[in-house]
Amino acid sequence: MHHVRFRDPAGAVRTGEWHGDTVSFGGETYDLGEVDVLPPCDPTKIVCIGRNYAKHAEERDEEVPDRPLLFLKPPNAVASHQDTVTLPAGKENVEHEAELAVVIGKQCRNVAVEDAESVIAGYTIMNDVSNRDDQDIESNWVRGKAFDGAAPLGPVLADPEHLPEDANITLRVNGETRQDSSIEHLIFSIPELVAEITTYVTLEPGDVISTGTPEGVGPLVDGDHVEVEIEGVGVLEHDVRQD
Amino acid sequence: MHHVRFRDPAGAVRTGEWHGDTVSFGGETYDLGEVDVLPPCDPTKIVCIGRNYAKHAEERDEEVPDRPLLFLKPPNAVASHQDTVTLPAGKENVEHEAELAVVIGKQCRNVAVEDAESVIAGYTIMNDVSNRDDQDIESNWVRGKAFDGAAPLGPVLADPEHLPEDANITLRVNGETRQDSSIEHLIFSIPELVAEITTYVTLEPGDVISTGTPEGVGPLVDGDHVEVEIEGVGVLEHDVRQD
Repeated sequence: MHHVRFRDPAGAVRTGEWHGDTVSFGGETYDLGEVDVLPPCDPTKIVCIGRNYAKHAEERDEEVPDRPLLFLKPPNAVASHQDTVTLPAGKENVEHEAELAVVIGKQCRNVAVEDAESVIAGYTIMNDVSNRDDQDIESNWVRGKAFDGAAPLGPVLADPEHLPEDANITLRVNGETRQDSSIEHLIFSIPELVAEITTYVTLEPGDVISTGTPEGVGPLVDGDHVEVEIEGVGVLEHDVRQD
Repeated sequence: MHHVRFRDPAGAVRTGEWHGDTVSFGGETYDLGEVDVLPPCDPTKIVCIGRNYAKHAEERDEEVPDRPLLFLKPPNAVASHQDTVTLPAGKENVEHEAELAVVIGKQCRNVAVEDAESVIAGYTIMNDVSNRDDQDIESNWVRGKAFDGAAPLGPVLADPEHLPEDANITLRVNGETRQDSSIEHLIFSIPELVAEITTYVTLEPGDVISTGTPEGVGPLVDGDHVEVEIEGVGVLEHDVRQD
């Protein structure tokens, strides 16, 4: 199943089922145009992974790390499917990063690699919107990657069985393909990420691990329309504004 | 007033008043030994400031930054007054950092320096517990500073008028003074921090800005008892365990 949170025409927040052009809850079916799609979960934190595809590390002129590079996005960064993300004012180099995102299903700590599947609720899609002007000069990427709207997330939470092991991940800007890879190229696997993070940090239900981006990152500018597609999960769309 | 959140003997969570040896709520007064003191707020994120006292930057062999160095601690890092903080296993160099912490009173974005006071609910105390083994080798300080228990916080939320402009800030380990300075040595002022952070990030009620530590940071080891005192605010205490 593909789960979706949405605000129905009466204003009630529902967790229902996604059918592509419609969503449903409690026997009612709505056209997508009638509802507001909300983020599929309500993370207390997003733990992000840097340089987890070798060709992306290469295009950024960085080494592949010998253990996962971790960084954080707080809840204020989350944006919804079909939102318009406002880029930080005055920044000249803001880029997209298409990512497969893991949604945690239960509170967990010290999870072994072989038990990681048991704490995963499912998968969604994130664009790790990155303000390189600041990221490249600050030691922790707060202005660079934690600004409001820096984490468009959704539209669905796909049950784990929908994600092929070699799922394609693509990102298009105004219809032009910019990123096109497969999650089979992840350097650190999802169970390895869950184990490493929970060695230090308790994960809560709804928390997100965003697994890193493949090669092909590129600029976002005012007026852009972004689509991130992951095979078996769906398509996340958002617009871009810069004042 | 010094506000305190606590669990009363019947298990109810109360926000009451702190009187030093007792706390009160709804006409009832309790000895501190009868209640569990909880963190004074429930942050969605803690925005921390690095190297905001010149002598601390110096002791760490780092430059004073030309704008605030920002990093994040997520909610899992919060610990309460009188909690025992478990240091990450196998790390040899974990240190204390006494800090004045600002508690945000209302949702805010793009706050001007001259309006910063209007979004501040009051002040509390934080120990920015820092795992240098990892901090010194990772690009974002997640293993280093975002682990469970890395942010003992409390015990009270002091109304702003209680904090002198030159308040002393001290930290003792097992009764021995390790840090002893004054908040008058902050490089970036609290209004400047609020303005800079909210240029990028929405702050929520209960969010915390931890303003950086003065010189004198030093090791924490299994069995230590830590007290952080800030004039006009109070004394935060916690124990330390390492398995």
